[in-house]
Amino acid sequence: MYRTHHCGELRIEQVGQTVTLSGWVQKSRDKGFMMWTDLRDRYGITQLIFSEEKSDAALFELARSLGREFVIQVSGKVIERTSKNPNIPTGDIEIEVSELKVLNPAKLPPFTIEEDTDGGDDLRMKYRYLDLRRGSVQNNIIFRSQLSLEVRKYLSGEGFIEVETPNLIKSTPEGARDFIVPSRMNPGQFYALPQSPQTFKQILMISGLDKYFQIVKCFRDEDLRADRQPEFTQIDCEMSFVTQEDILNTFEGLTKHVFKTLKGIGLPDFPRMYYDDALRLYGSDKPDLRFGMQFTELNDLAKDKGFIVFDSAELVVGIVAEGQAEYTRKQIDQLTDWVKRPQIGARGLVYVKYNQDGSFKSSVGKFFDDEALKAWAEKMGAKPGDLMLILAGETDKTRKQLNELRLEMGRRMGLMKEGDFKPLWVLDFPLLEWDEEAERFHAMHHPFTSPKKEDIPRMLNGDFQTMKSLRADAYDLVINGAEIGGGSIRIHDRELQAKNFTLLGFTDEEAENQFGFLMGAFEYGAPPHGGIAFGFDRLCAVMNGQSSIRDFIAFPKNNQGRDMMIDAPAAVDKEQLDELKLDLQHIEEEIE
Amino acid sequence: MYRTHHCGELRIEQVGQTVTLSGWVQKSRDKGFMMWTDLRDRYGITQLIFSEEKSDAALFELARSLGREFVIQVSGKVIERTSKNPNIPTGDIEIEVSELKVLNPAKLPPFTIEEDTDGGDDLRMKYRYLDLRRGSVQNNIIFRSQLSLEVRKYLSGEGFIEVETPNLIKSTPEGARDFIVPSRMNPGQFYALPQSPQTFKQILMISGLDKYFQIVKCFRDEDLRADRQPEFTQIDCEMSFVTQEDILNTFEGLTKHVFKTLKGIGLPDFPRMYYDDALRLYGSDKPDLRFGMQFTELNDLAKDKGFIVFDSAELVVGIVAEGQAEYTRKQIDQLTDWVKRPQIGARGLVYVKYNQDGSFKSSVGKFFDDEALKAWAEKMGAKPGDLMLILAGETDKTRKQLNELRLEMGRRMGLMKEGDFKPLWVLDFPLLEWDEEAERFHAMHHPFTSPKKEDIPRMLNGDFQTMKSLRADAYDLVINGAEIGGGSIRIHDRELQAKNFTLLGFTDEEAENQFGFLMGAFEYGAPPHGGIAFGFDRLCAVMNGQSSIRDFIAFPKNNQGRDMMIDAPAAVDKEQLDELKLDLQHIEEEIE
Repeated sequence: MYRTHHCGELRIEQVGQTVTLSGWVQKSRDKGFMMWTDLRDRYGITQLIFSEEKSDAALFELARSLGREFVIQVSGKVIERTSKNPNIPTGDIEIEVSELKVLNPAKLPPFTIEEDTDGGDDLRMKYRYLDLRRGSVQNNIIFRSQLSLEVRKYLSGEGFIEVETPNLIKSTPEGARDFIVPSRMNPGQFYALPQSPQTFKQILMISGLDKYFQIVKCFRDEDLRADRQPEFTQIDCEMSFVTQEDILNTFEGLTKHVFKTLKGIGLPDFPRMYYDDALRLYGSDKPDLRFGMQFTELNDLAKDKGFIVFDSAELVVGIVAEGQAEYTRKQIDQLTDWVKRPQIGARGLVYVKYNQDGSFKSSVGKFFDDEALKAWAEKMGAKPGDLMLILAGETDKTRKQLNELRLEMGRRMGLMKEGDFKPLWVLDFPLLEWDEEAERFHAMHHPFTSPKKEDIPRMLNGDFQTMKSLRADAYDLVINGAEIGGGSIRIHDRELQAKNFTLLGFTDEEAENQFGFLMGAFEYGAPPHGGIAFGFDRLCAVMNGQSSIRDFIAFPKNNQGRDMMIDAPAAVDKEQLDELKLDLQHIEEEIE
Repeated sequence: MYRTHHCGELRIEQVGQTVTLSGWVQKSRDKGFMMWTDLRDRYGITQLIFSEEKSDAALFELARSLGREFVIQVSGKVIERTSKNPNIPTGDIEIEVSELKVLNPAKLPPFTIEEDTDGGDDLRMKYRYLDLRRGSVQNNIIFRSQLSLEVRKYLSGEGFIEVETPNLIKSTPEGARDFIVPSRMNPGQFYALPQSPQTFKQILMISGLDKYFQIVKCFRDEDLRADRQPEFTQIDCEMSFVTQEDILNTFEGLTKHVFKTLKGIGLPDFPRMYYDDALRLYGSDKPDLRFGMQFTELNDLAKDKGFIVFDSAELVVGIVAEGQAEYTRKQIDQLTDWVKRPQIGARGLVYVKYNQDGSFKSSVGKFFDDEALKAWAEKMGAKPGDLMLILAGETDKTRKQLNELRLEMGRRMGLMKEGDFKPLWVLDFPLLEWDEEAERFHAMHHPFTSPKKEDIPRMLNGDFQTMKSLRADAYDLVINGAEIGGGSIRIHDRELQAKNFTLLGFTDEEAENQFGFLMGAFEYGAPPHGGIAFGFDRLCAVMNGQSSIRDFIAFPKNNQGRDMMIDAPAAVDKEQLDELKLDLQHIEEEIE
């Protein structure tokens, strides 16, 4: 037996007991005649004491030889500390060690295993097992485990069945790129790893499972941005005989449950916003509602007044930064440079300071007198002391730019408070999205999303412009500006699904080849159904006020899709490829 | 809103209420002026009633047009049935339908959706969504969901953290064949899908997670036997600072818990048996303990008596089939043919009938008189009325053959009773297994398994014969002759791991290339650790007294690794292969 207790367990009540502990040496303080060692495991830290006076000489010497991260086993008596540490639960006691055994020595770690580690990203990824010893990283992984359990308990309690769908499926070129897996038994053929279990969960509804969920790995072979992973995890759900309202209520309930049980936070009912309004008021389909700063459109007040930038713009739109009229010229210039960066792409920034004395100072003072600016202020709800920031240009682009500016002002003004959670349902997404470049429609959500019932006749008979205006029973859950999940009511009718595939540019043959099984299934008694998927990694991060999902994944990959620890991907033997009937193409080495 | 209740919910108490139900038409009985329709969903069946007298004419006509598996929505009043059906929970009531809506019609299913379906395997696989509507299949999937939840609750309660390990890892040629996944971002390189999260869970122990579990998909590209799947699910676990005893106790607790909560069965403490004894007494490392029929070795009594078959055999060994002395000559001949089939491979079968009158009748009566046979009977524990069955030959082979014969006799004699569960721990597996053909050692469990502590010096210094005799801290859980899971205490020392790789035929370079990260991790403070993995699909099947795991997988693949429903694997576009820098080799079409 390696231990009678773990390192976070002993209290003053156990004083006098003889115990055995095992763990890692966190650090030692050697005072010559006395030595204290912090012994660490997942559960906490317990202080060990060795003394020249009381300890056996060999034991004392062995204790002195212990390095950081040595794995040891000790036995000894629990004694009361003379100087207690109120910061840790075991701070009242220490162990007077009478037996010490080194279970495994440790080389000096390449970085310090502390909160403020000196290890860079690459080093910590390579030695991920050491990085995972740090409390914050370990807590993230433990939080993730607790969250998955609570999700499962809640959904099971609501009558959902967790069903494992297959990982070796079929490649469908629609959407993101698939990872494919050569089949040895079927040479020349490939499986694909699922980007989501979408068609399988719909099949489960057709099979009568009624309520399905799964916490499931999904795979996308995309070029990786900072916060994307080739494999990620979804809370995937589907329900039969439901309307959008049923789904929103169920998953609002789930979200409230996990915030309550894991964060102790009781969230009020989630507000709802139409997609069109979200874009109009926040320039984004995932507005951060921790602060206001809604957009005000100024076309009626700002256009046709002789200022060419506004006159030629499709949209003039602004926000109010409360109490920021004191912004200096330098600060304004800096902000102007910020919105003009290529990542934002605005052509300029118009500011109006509403001074405390009621006067105005603006970059467009030449074109607009105080009376005109006062009308702006009134429309925008600005008060003396506020700063109005205005952008102009093509509608979609300008809204996106102002969204970025709004978020930046929110950050600068400290409006995104830690521990503040503002969920929001965004509703009625468009069904289709026109891709100017490819000259085709994409599915805004995915090809299985149903148009709103009242839009179905228009979809079946409408012209090109009509298609752009179709709305879907599609919805996203947003928390603090992060998209936590999205879903839709699905098509369950073969004809409507076929029409949607046609709109998306599928030939009948392609549709049949890729999704024939699903369209076929629609003919054998498919119930109305819909669902949702939450990004599990993202939910973990957002619930902890963090922006990077990587910190909540035990073994993440880097931006090149590499696992730095195991050094994957890697070359494979020629024999393996021969078994799969594959050859490598000649690869031109890139010149650095 | 599609429904106020589901189809398994209404009782006599709801009589008089107006309700709305949705579901599938199971079947209708049309009596001309009256019609009854069974409406089905996941939760049950509710009877609908339509009558010429009370129903609107159009409604009655519509009801008559309903085919099997039509999806409908009805509203109406709950009324008490005149003739009740005590076999279903809703049998006291029926719905007097006042509104009927066809939500989706259905074509005639290609097979009947009933317990005794007329659909063949291939047809049911292709239309898996229809097969999944059958009660028994659906119950299997629901059982699986409940089992996974109970496993998670139990292990979480025991302090285990569920950690998701990656699915895109590195190919290691040791063991079974990997599925590999070409990396587009790293051309010429491949990920592999995990055969198990073995190295990652050990890494998690080194990172201090202490107790890990995961219900996880694993992948093996093996030629498929009847009951193997290319992707399967494990309950995977690992613990730090533990001995074998700790692991056995924890997972015996888990097993008892799931039997108790899901089957209502309280299992007594599990017996334990050494691997050597299992082979000696049952000829198998997974003995079915639902019945006795232990082996008795007869070398001392049977050899050197002039019967050449015995005299030349390494082992003479038998079983007693209680009360089967009445076996006819024809039955014995049939049994002899059975053991001589190539799948069993025995060269013959010796029988001894211990007649009720105390006399003996045997195929070796020429060589052994009644006194000699009585000595056999005494040693074997046979009584008058019993049949002794004896095989002879090379030890390992003969044991395997007698194991098959024992199981066959168990089946014939009806000794494998439904609802009877006999778990068993098999302990102390050998560390290494000599492969005569390849002239090399294989790891009996896997390359990370630790030899028993007392065997470590012999391992580090022993000769070839010594290596064959090394025992490991490795254990299997067996229930009713099926291997539910297995595990081991792992090596946590770099030197010992390196030695094991050498014994297994790895060069230092190969070991470093494939498992260098793990051996490196051993040097940074690796705790003693061990673990176990349960076959989740197998556990589902065994708990339900079934032998096929396929019935517990929502979307299984067939013996050619194909998903018949979605028709995967399949060819992919040339462009996809070009992006991956892959070419297909020319594939010779096989001539049928």
